[in-house]
Amino acid sequence: MRVQYNEDLKKLNDMLVDMGNLVEISLEKSKKAFKEQDKTLAEDIVRGDQSINNLEHDIEALCFKLMLRQQPVATDLRVIATALKVVTDLERIGDQAADISEMSLSFNGKYPYKTVEHIPTMMKVCREMVHEAIRAYVTKDLERGKRADAMDDQVDVLFSEVKAEIVAILKEGKENIDDCLNYLIIAKYLERIGDHATNIYEWLEFLMTGEIEDTQ
Amino acid sequence: MRVQYNEDLKKLNDMLVDMGNLVEISLEKSKKAFKEQDKTLAEDIVRGDQSINNLEHDIEALCFKLMLRQQPVATDLRVIATALKVVTDLERIGDQAADISEMSLSFNGKYPYKTVEHIPTMMKVCREMVHEAIRAYVTKDLERGKRADAMDDQVDVLFSEVKAEIVAILKEGKENIDDCLNYLIIAKYLERIGDHATNIYEWLEFLMTGEIEDTQ
Repeated sequence: MRVQYNEDLKKLNDMLVDMGNLVEISLEKSKKAFKEQDKTLAEDIVRGDQSINNLEHDIEALCFKLMLRQQPVATDLRVIATALKVVTDLERIGDQAADISEMSLSFNGKYPYKTVEHIPTMMKVCREMVHEAIRAYVTKDLERGKRADAMDDQVDVLFSEVKAEIVAILKEGKENIDDCLNYLIIAKYLERIGDHATNIYEWLEFLMTGEIEDTQ
Repeated sequence: MRVQYNEDLKKLNDMLVDMGNLVEISLEKSKKAFKEQDKTLAEDIVRGDQSINNLEHDIEALCFKLMLRQQPVATDLRVIATALKVVTDLERIGDQAADISEMSLSFNGKYPYKTVEHIPTMMKVCREMVHEAIRAYVTKDLERGKRADAMDDQVDVLFSEVKAEIVAILKEGKENIDDCLNYLIIAKYLERIGDHATNIYEWLEFLMTGEIEDTQ
């Protein structure tokens, strides 16, 4: 029974790694779909989000099974309880990548990143932040996690810059208003992705130290 | 030991009720702060969000303690694991109420609800949806939860209406552009509040049936 239990614990970690990878791929694809206005790719991401949701449910089910099967020791329990929390943030990042892709479809093939210059920068920073936070979590590297967490300030500053850019564009009155509002919504999704990456670091911190910080 | 354990389980439920109440009060206050442009109230909500965050941590800590103290039976475990998930949604609703309040401060005492008419309606529907979802959860009333969940469509439609209103106002070109973008962000927060209320219903469904649906 203990052997099975240890195998399941290992499986839990593997599944988290898989989910992290899927989320990262989805985010990378959504960056490309937006930048290249690739409709097929955007639709692919929206459809693919279901696999991320399914994996979340499988991980949750495994966590419940592990909790029930055998009384976990304190450290195992922390691993399981943290997994249960961290999948929420991973799933939300996946959702937001899908939301960005869906929104990208509304620009009808125009290259909006030429208009709002800070959006691709924001996408790049978010992409890197998520990558670092996930890698830090699965390798239990607190220092790496801390560096990922520090990037959130950059994301927040970039959000303000995107907003200021959109105000300036609207003042000029040459751009489609609907598009401008959609840029703002995309920037808001990216800002939320940054918050979820911060949460991942905070769950890593709890996993390693037992201390809970404010999640966002 | 069993007596203490049962007392702690009861305490967990009481704490969830308390957290639900705090979140509801915060949301109600944020509606008032926005509508009446009450700066003192808005600042009070932003400060008060810390109590909600603290309660979230206390609930999480109690869940971990309950899991560790004694191997819970399957139904208790579901209660504990669901509590661990549901507090995330409650805390996020609290966060968003605080975000709305913070944003309300940027209108400098103007009555923006006269401009974007659908925002107060959206606030009213969200407020009711959250109330129903929380009450359904704490009283384990699946039917009531289902009715709360059904309101999310209304919230999504209202979001589109707010967006269309903002586009029309921007086209007219008479309103402050910054304010218009902030209305959109507030509407986005409200839409997210609807999603979190839906999640609360879905955790209730899991608690009652063991079936996990897609959370948003």
